[in-house]
Amino acid sequence: MTDQNTSSEKPWGGRFSEPTDAFVERFTASVGFDQRLYHHDITGSIAHATMLAKVGVLTGDERDQIVEGLKVVKAEIEAGEFQWSVSLEDVHMNVEKSLTDRIGITGKKLHTGRSRNDQVATDIRLYLRDEIDVIHEELVRLRKGLLDLAEREAETIMPGFTHLQTAQPVTFGHHLMAWYEMLARDTERLLDCRKRVNIMPLGAAALAGTTYPIDRAYTAELLGFDRPTENSLDSVSDRDFAIEFGSFAALLMTHLSRFSEELVLWTSAQFDFIDLPDRFCTGSSIMPQKKNPDVPELVRGKTGRVNGHLISLLTLMKGQPLAYNKDNQEDKEPLFDMVDTVKGCLKAYADMVPAIESKAENMRVAAKRGFSTATDLADYLVKKGVAFRDAHEIVGKAVAFGVAEERDLSDMTLDELSRFSDVIKNDVFDVLTLEGSVQARDHIGGTAPRQVREAVARARAAMEG
Amino acid sequence: MTDQNTSSEKPWGGRFSEPTDAFVERFTASVGFDQRLYHHDITGSIAHATMLAKVGVLTGDERDQIVEGLKVVKAEIEAGEFQWSVSLEDVHMNVEKSLTDRIGITGKKLHTGRSRNDQVATDIRLYLRDEIDVIHEELVRLRKGLLDLAEREAETIMPGFTHLQTAQPVTFGHHLMAWYEMLARDTERLLDCRKRVNIMPLGAAALAGTTYPIDRAYTAELLGFDRPTENSLDSVSDRDFAIEFGSFAALLMTHLSRFSEELVLWTSAQFDFIDLPDRFCTGSSIMPQKKNPDVPELVRGKTGRVNGHLISLLTLMKGQPLAYNKDNQEDKEPLFDMVDTVKGCLKAYADMVPAIESKAENMRVAAKRGFSTATDLADYLVKKGVAFRDAHEIVGKAVAFGVAEERDLSDMTLDELSRFSDVIKNDVFDVLTLEGSVQARDHIGGTAPRQVREAVARARAAMEG
Amino acid sequence: MTDQNTSSEKPWGGRFSEPTDAFVERFTASVGFDQRLYHHDITGSIAHATMLAKVGVLTGDERDQIVEGLKVVKAEIEAGEFQWSVSLEDVHMNVEKSLTDRIGITGKKLHTGRSRNDQVATDIRLYLRDEIDVIHEELVRLRKGLLDLAEREAETIMPGFTHLQTAQPVTFGHHLMAWYEMLARDTERLLDCRKRVNIMPLGAAALAGTTYPIDRAYTAELLGFDRPTENSLDSVSDRDFAIEFGSFAALLMTHLSRFSEELVLWTSAQFDFIDLPDRFCTGSSIMPQKKNPDVPELVRGKTGRVNGHLISLLTLMKGQPLAYNKDNQEDKEPLFDMVDTVKGCLKAYADMVPAIESKAENMRVAAKRGFSTATDLADYLVKKGVAFRDAHEIVGKAVAFGVAEERDLSDMTLDELSRFSDVIKNDVFDVLTLEGSVQARDHIGGTAPRQVREAVARARAAMEG
Amino acid sequence: MTDQNTSSEKPWGGRFSEPTDAFVERFTASVGFDQRLYHHDITGSIAHATMLAKVGVLTGDERDQIVEGLKVVKAEIEAGEFQWSVSLEDVHMNVEKSLTDRIGITGKKLHTGRSRNDQVATDIRLYLRDEIDVIHEELVRLRKGLLDLAEREAETIMPGFTHLQTAQPVTFGHHLMAWYEMLARDTERLLDCRKRVNIMPLGAAALAGTTYPIDRAYTAELLGFDRPTENSLDSVSDRDFAIEFGSFAALLMTHLSRFSEELVLWTSAQFDFIDLPDRFCTGSSIMPQKKNPDVPELVRGKTGRVNGHLISLLTLMKGQPLAYNKDNQEDKEPLFDMVDTVKGCLKAYADMVPAIESKAENMRVAAKRGFSTATDLADYLVKKGVAFRDAHEIVGKAVAFGVAEERDLSDMTLDELSRFSDVIKNDVFDVLTLEGSVQARDHIGGTAPRQVREAVARARAAMEG
Repeated sequence: MTDQNTSSEKPWGGRFSEPTDAFVERFTASVGFDQRLYHHDITGSIAHATMLAKVGVLTGDERDQIVEGLKVVKAEIEAGEFQWSVSLEDVHMNVEKSLTDRIGITGKKLHTGRSRNDQVATDIRLYLRDEIDVIHEELVRLRKGLLDLAEREAETIMPGFTHLQTAQPVTFGHHLMAWYEMLARDTERLLDCRKRVNIMPLGAAALAGTTYPIDRAYTAELLGFDRPTENSLDSVSDRDFAIEFGSFAALLMTHLSRFSEELVLWTSAQFDFIDLPDRFCTGSSIMPQKKNPDVPELVRGKTGRVNGHLISLLTLMKGQPLAYNKDNQEDKEPLFDMVDTVKGCLKAYADMVPAIESKAENMRVAAKRGFSTATDLADYLVKKGVAFRDAHEIVGKAVAFGVAEERDLSDMTLDELSRFSDVIKNDVFDVLTLEGSVQARDHIGGTAPRQVREAVARARAAMEG
Repeated sequence: MTDQNTSSEKPWGGRFSEPTDAFVERFTASVGFDQRLYHHDITGSIAHATMLAKVGVLTGDERDQIVEGLKVVKAEIEAGEFQWSVSLEDVHMNVEKSLTDRIGITGKKLHTGRSRNDQVATDIRLYLRDEIDVIHEELVRLRKGLLDLAEREAETIMPGFTHLQTAQPVTFGHHLMAWYEMLARDTERLLDCRKRVNIMPLGAAALAGTTYPIDRAYTAELLGFDRPTENSLDSVSDRDFAIEFGSFAALLMTHLSRFSEELVLWTSAQFDFIDLPDRFCTGSSIMPQKKNPDVPELVRGKTGRVNGHLISLLTLMKGQPLAYNKDNQEDKEPLFDMVDTVKGCLKAYADMVPAIESKAENMRVAAKRGFSTATDLADYLVKKGVAFRDAHEIVGKAVAFGVAEERDLSDMTLDELSRFSDVIKNDVFDVLTLEGSVQARDHIGGTAPRQVREAVARARAAMEG
Repeated sequence: MTDQNTSSEKPWGGRFSEPTDAFVERFTASVGFDQRLYHHDITGSIAHATMLAKVGVLTGDERDQIVEGLKVVKAEIEAGEFQWSVSLEDVHMNVEKSLTDRIGITGKKLHTGRSRNDQVATDIRLYLRDEIDVIHEELVRLRKGLLDLAEREAETIMPGFTHLQTAQPVTFGHHLMAWYEMLARDTERLLDCRKRVNIMPLGAAALAGTTYPIDRAYTAELLGFDRPTENSLDSVSDRDFAIEFGSFAALLMTHLSRFSEELVLWTSAQFDFIDLPDRFCTGSSIMPQKKNPDVPELVRGKTGRVNGHLISLLTLMKGQPLAYNKDNQEDKEPLFDMVDTVKGCLKAYADMVPAIESKAENMRVAAKRGFSTATDLADYLVKKGVAFRDAHEIVGKAVAFGVAEERDLSDMTLDELSRFSDVIKNDVFDVLTLEGSVQARDHIGGTAPRQVREAVARARAAMEG
Repeated sequence: MTDQNTSSEKPWGGRFSEPTDAFVERFTASVGFDQRLYHHDITGSIAHATMLAKVGVLTGDERDQIVEGLKVVKAEIEAGEFQWSVSLEDVHMNVEKSLTDRIGITGKKLHTGRSRNDQVATDIRLYLRDEIDVIHEELVRLRKGLLDLAEREAETIMPGFTHLQTAQPVTFGHHLMAWYEMLARDTERLLDCRKRVNIMPLGAAALAGTTYPIDRAYTAELLGFDRPTENSLDSVSDRDFAIEFGSFAALLMTHLSRFSEELVLWTSAQFDFIDLPDRFCTGSSIMPQKKNPDVPELVRGKTGRVNGHLISLLTLMKGQPLAYNKDNQEDKEPLFDMVDTVKGCLKAYADMVPAIESKAENMRVAAKRGFSTATDLADYLVKKGVAFRDAHEIVGKAVAFGVAEERDLSDMTLDELSRFSDVIKNDVFDVLTLEGSVQARDHIGGTAPRQVREAVARARAAMEG
């Protein structure tokens, strides 16, 4: 960053008897990271100038000079030719100074009826609204990928786990739809958050409003905001929208960390349930045989980052008296990094999920192991009149026998099975198959292939609706 | 807690060759804290039994025995006569064992078609839904208290601060309405959260659904849920609702910490802006003159507690493979404590806020100090044709003069003022008064008394709407 | 808790014109949780009285009355006969009131030269010092258990993982010694923390010290503190020791969460590397075949709780002006819960670790799979003059061939192997065995059985030294 | 960053059948942030090559070529002429590739006997050790500044606060020494952390050690490490040192947040206890009179950032199985940002503290208000034979009278005072002065000017010792 300004050019220098300390200037400047907001800053300024002209604070000619000037500044930034200055502290002053250098004294009128306090709050909301829309698209893309994969895998049988112990057979499609449900809730939360982001603080000025006859509803309309905020003190000190976005992001990342954990497990030699294409993996500089599931691991690791940023923001706001305090400048980096992280992780997953290849035979073998149809045997007993808790105990003993003998329930003879309960007859083998087990769970939310397909259909309809 | 059960009575003992280690039994038991869910556990069981009878898994008579038995158990718990047993691990097994002791073998049929995994998920949601409704009421009560106080104080002038430096005069009512806005958003978030809480996991059984012909929509209706969940694996492993409630709670507490900080400042000898009645304060065991604002301090401190619980829950769920893992037992204590904390803090504030007494004269004196109408002078200059940035510099010099002379702008003579700019005329003194300053900010969101009253009216209408 | 006191009995009532609000009394009272400190409170008071007599503020007779009275109070508490009162706010006032009820006006002299601010800070430090010593013992017990197990398993070969992919063979003893190293660091941190806990704040009084001629060095000696604190304002407002303990605890729990994750993986059907005895596991109420590793899962889950408490305490102290504020009352519950959690988890692990049974054959089979000696082949090539990076590529191609053919490197013929590099001769098969691989890593920190035994010996020596 | 490598040049490409996805390559690359480690990476490589030559794995000539080549690479980086490549993933591969381009096949031998897993762990420790030393210097500088200021202000009287209510008079020097104590503990913790940072993981290779005859003690000595690590699996998976540094940093920032809160309060118009020079403050773009304490505010805000990073790291490591996982790549950015934040905040404070100017008269007036010598009156009564608790009540009534009459205790007549207790005589006025109050607290840790000077002297001696 080139710095061509001396401190004496500060917009607030009048009252001060010595220049800012050089280190303090760098330490307190935000332009290093808030220059990312230039686009939304200029968009906001154009709307502000347009409103000022509508209410007569600017002439039409002044407005046009400002709007044209801002467009030139924007083009210069986008061409990489803008000289950012740390002395000018932030993106707002950098843009305004450049405007004034360009169009002269009229540029100084742009700041009429606003302050950097409401300006930055507006910029961040415009920025976050746009990013939310991008994130929403990636979420939808990932969810669609999951639906397709779940449909394809609606009949594939795998072991369902609790406590990472084989519990009951489930379908792979059903498992994938559990992931889908998490993301569907995340999408709802994102849209709920967007409602509260899309409200305009501009017009709050420093903290109390302004003496100019501003038309906030008009500016809000120009900028696509649902309405102006209700209270000026709140407008400049509120960072709820960043925290609420952080809450969304932390929960989303928690979900992705769970998917990641499963992908890492499933690609291990011990599970070997799926294959990830080579293009989503990397190797080792020392162990030539390795194919590492880097993407899921990295996404899992990034959960910490987002949880941390959420805590940063909550800690930042704790105990702050109204209205704006300099502390609030610290809201941007965590927010930016959460946005980038969430976008990157969603993109990686949306690209990768459709490429997951199941190894159906391995899954099936694993499902057979571990007495996964023991519950089916218990249910069989109950349907023959045994109380559930008693049936549970009978099956427990049959399993203990199987553990000792190293044989699955379906590999025992009728003679052996009937030793544990005399209600067990030859029809027991129908319920001890994997297919019988999954098909029998045939109610809304159950793992039966038919239910998975219906859940996919409902989800597709809901996404379109 | 009295423990009359030996380990051999475990509901899952069949497969095991040695009893649980005594310490492990205590270490892993949850009944010490989850007994709080007894009411919702029994409510859920009654609905489950009713549904089982409807679909023919239970006879009408069995259902009646179970329902009556559960009511007796509940009455016994509420009378404080229930013997909770650690060997029975949790509230579910304690209640069921007591039921079975009472009605015999029929009691064992209650657990048909469900598992503790979906049962506990249902219990927590029922519990949290009820607590959300209580919290909602307290939020509304606090907001109404704020509206009344804001209306009463719509004309009281105080200094508005940024950076804790006197910035511009604002009305006390306007400041209070900033608090109101935060709580209005919290209420929205709470209700958004409630939508996602009020969905029924029951029927997911252990993880895959059940082979019994259950009618989940019917059970959901009986329990007042909006609908059953869509996926059984997700149903037993999802704790989003607790985390989302935690996000709501952390943000609410952050707001209360900000109110608290201000109350602590305002009751200090240095600010002395308000009085809190003695009944909300405590004294010192060593310093007889002290009157400490304990309630705001304690509420501010409790922010940490809730942030911590949010992190607990996020950390808990990070990287967990599906479906249920024992880790999830750790969801309850943070959730319970957040609910209790939020209820206590809201109650304290809803009781205390209407009793806040402003010291209007002290506020007014403070507002006069600190050149709080400097911005008004700048605006005056701009309206006379000076560019805003230039006006800012002129006023900066006038303030520097005032600092040196220890005089406010309104205490300078016209002669002195006009030294800084010759456009300053006698009408300048109109804009340098506190009343002139606040009344001039007369747009939506501005601090003018008229705007405060209108904001109160809009808020009242919205709360009723 | 029975409450026999009315609010008018408050120790600070003189200045107040109305009694404390009943809810506020309960909301702000700490006796519900700080009564746990009674033992250390009384110990501290006895030392304080002894010192006051030494410096002449109390007579010998007064001291004796107070000491005897306090012992009776303590006995009453320990017998479960003490009537705790919420009106008396905290453990300190409850104890003192009971003393005064018993011995009359002399009891009121005990509080001379101190305040609840320095009293509670002293109590917590005494409490924490004792608990640190208990935790230290459990840590040592767990470490010793690990050393014994590591020694027993020094030759057992298992796959070493990176990215949860088979990387290279390691010995199980070596893996266990990695756990040991983490705990050795935790122990160091605990003892470093203890140094800063064991300093006495008593004598700071409310915040500024006292006008009585107290002898702080003497009281410190009586209580086993290393020295009195240096600054009274810091003494009553410092909670570093709780936060530092929390940092220790969070890192310890992070380590236990890693061990837990591995135990959960290793007891899964897919890994099947170890067995945990039945007494450390529990079953399922619905799936009779399940044997769940509850202890590791629960310990893993409790990581969240401790991380959360650490954040609670950091958030609590953030931005607090000196000296004591009521916020600080919130330090106790997180600290108590961290202590209890750490003790419970360490006890569970110290009991369980010696009972871990390895399934050496399963581990061995797994180590053979996954081309775990690929690095050894690369090293072989390098020793024959091939540059490491080139050797890496050669082996990568051999592995790709093995993946396609579903054969390990050691199962290929010399003919096949030499197709990838003509330097490969018959001696290659020496380095492709598991034993050859682990024994070759024979330097400090390496996985060779000899190194494991030496590491165990060094660790034993260090623990005794 | 210019990228001149195609994916086919990956060091681990042999086993892979398709190139890495372009987005995945960027998403998983760390070179964007880990290039900061180049200096320590090269230092570590030079020591590694030197050791390899010592044990005969490299010839002396090979070592020299490598060392010279690495120095050229380093010079190129420092001249800003190095072409960093994302395809080469990280700083290690970028440096090595450049070396090999330069010196040919010999460069490929550098990686013998190590892996990126132990290499990066070594780099970070070298980096962190250096940064700890810089931070230590800044801490010492700040502490020295505090000692000088405390000595200068040893007699300045200000109100001591509890609950932000005036409690007792203290000396400003004493208050500053409370800050000093916090920083002295932080320094101890930093040095305790350094002990555990300064241990060398190099030689652990990928996870199990290496088959080359490495001499780890020699490499450790070359790099200034205290010793090599004890266990290779732990060496590559341990990130305790980063978390422990984070714990140090979070507590330090918590302390700075407390100092900051007080500076913000003290520069407010309501307190007006101190002046910060203009060079440490900034102004407002809209309110010309403002002089904002930006540095303290920003430092206070940055507490959140560091707490957040600590949680990031703890969350990152939670539940990770051994040994290295890609998740660990996420350790760097939080660590780097904590280091930068702590250094910046300490520098700002070390520069600013000596420039704090007290407004002794304002402090004195504030100390007189608020009945700050009420405890002294109570002590006076006790010394005349009144029991402390009774004395407390007597003074409470006198204060209530003073509140009603708006008069301080020292402004009451003897006649008025003696109405509350007949033991009050004319000598009471000696203890009701501010000077009398502070001088009477004349024991170690007390606020008496003499004690402050002695505490300063002890601190100076300790820092030199």
